[in-house]
Amino acid sequence: MRALIFDVFGTCVDWRTSIAEAAEAYGLPAEVADAWRAQYQPQLETVRDGSRPWVNLDVLHRIGLDIVLRDLGVDLPDRDRVELTRAWHRLRPWPDVVGGLTELKTNQIIAPCSNGHIAQSVNLAKYAGLPWDAILGAEIAHAYKPDPEVYLASVHALGLEPHEVCMVAAHNGDLLAAQAVGLRTAFVPRPAEHGPGQTTDLAPEGDYDLVVTDFWQLADRI
Amino acid sequence: MRALIFDVFGTCVDWRTSIAEAAEAYGLPAEVADAWRAQYQPQLETVRDGSRPWVNLDVLHRIGLDIVLRDLGVDLPDRDRVELTRAWHRLRPWPDVVGGLTELKTNQIIAPCSNGHIAQSVNLAKYAGLPWDAILGAEIAHAYKPDPEVYLASVHALGLEPHEVCMVAAHNGDLLAAQAVGLRTAFVPRPAEHGPGQTTDLAPEGDYDLVVTDFWQLADRI
Repeated sequence: MRALIFDVFGTCVDWRTSIAEAAEAYGLPAEVADAWRAQYQPQLETVRDGSRPWVNLDVLHRIGLDIVLRDLGVDLPDRDRVELTRAWHRLRPWPDVVGGLTELKTNQIIAPCSNGHIAQSVNLAKYAGLPWDAILGAEIAHAYKPDPEVYLASVHALGLEPHEVCMVAAHNGDLLAAQAVGLRTAFVPRPAEHGPGQTTDLAPEGDYDLVVTDFWQLADRI
Repeated sequence: MRALIFDVFGTCVDWRTSIAEAAEAYGLPAEVADAWRAQYQPQLETVRDGSRPWVNLDVLHRIGLDIVLRDLGVDLPDRDRVELTRAWHRLRPWPDVVGGLTELKTNQIIAPCSNGHIAQSVNLAKYAGLPWDAILGAEIAHAYKPDPEVYLASVHALGLEPHEVCMVAAHNGDLLAAQAVGLRTAFVPRPAEHGPGQTTDLAPEGDYDLVVTDFWQLADRI
């Protein structure tokens, strides 16, 4: 194994708590976080099914926010919507992430393979202290996970073959898609990603190469 | 200013000494370094003028090496040529580079804007300890500097405008091309890049925003 590539939203960072706080700073209810995230897959799907050309996640997050605010009957000025959308560039890491990545980086290439674009990923890395070696993922493929092209473009950008790269994620769908195109896989459950009532992705649903409790254990096992 | 993007070969790393040593390890004369580098611009030009589709620098370096070895009348096995071409992934930084970049990274985004591809840039960063926030440059543009598209693709990948980004280089041609599309510019002379007899790029030949002696002074001035 030469490199590990990581899902970011949920796997590396606690988007839900961070976005709830950002929403509250604009006088919005904390529930906006879940409602906004519920718009995520439907908006990605418009690119995946070809009904919209590839646009970055700032654009798709803004479309989702406008829908959420319309449903809530809230009127927020455009400049606040722009700023609030940028909250996705400032999300707090889970406590094991910076230490685990720093350890992994000593003998592996580490990079995000996220649906976030390069600017979002760089800003998030600066904010959260994620010590990436490169920024890979959706933007270099102009596609969105789980489209296989996103995993393969990231692998090939590193000059590697799929079996030399491990995809790390808290989501079964992400890992199964990576595995289907030949990558190794590591599952790290994040049972608090969706709050106290989480029912999905609590356990591995595939035959992964590794199942670990957190990034510290991941670093020990690699 | 929000970000600094850097030329790498010559500006960040001493390719000449490193490649001469790599060549000597294969029983070749140290002069191979200069002869090989002399093939660099002509090979890039085949992509810039459209006579060859974009291929990465490993491919172009290998073509250049084959020409140099043919001219020398040296027969080297294919596997050694592959390995020697990889020497461009392992080049020593100038002494001020790692410290200067580390300081700059505390309040700026830093990234290479090199003609090296992502795999080469990542491997070089791991080898030399270059603490980049992202890997930008030729591969994301599928073009080679000084094609303006390389600078603009790097700026836009960061979600920034040209005037928010400073191009740092030891080469006047690189800086003049970046300045022509609106980037800020910083000249750092590397008078030993081409060895003791260097006659080019010893002084600024344009009206740059900054002229500094090394990356430590660059970090002080930013």
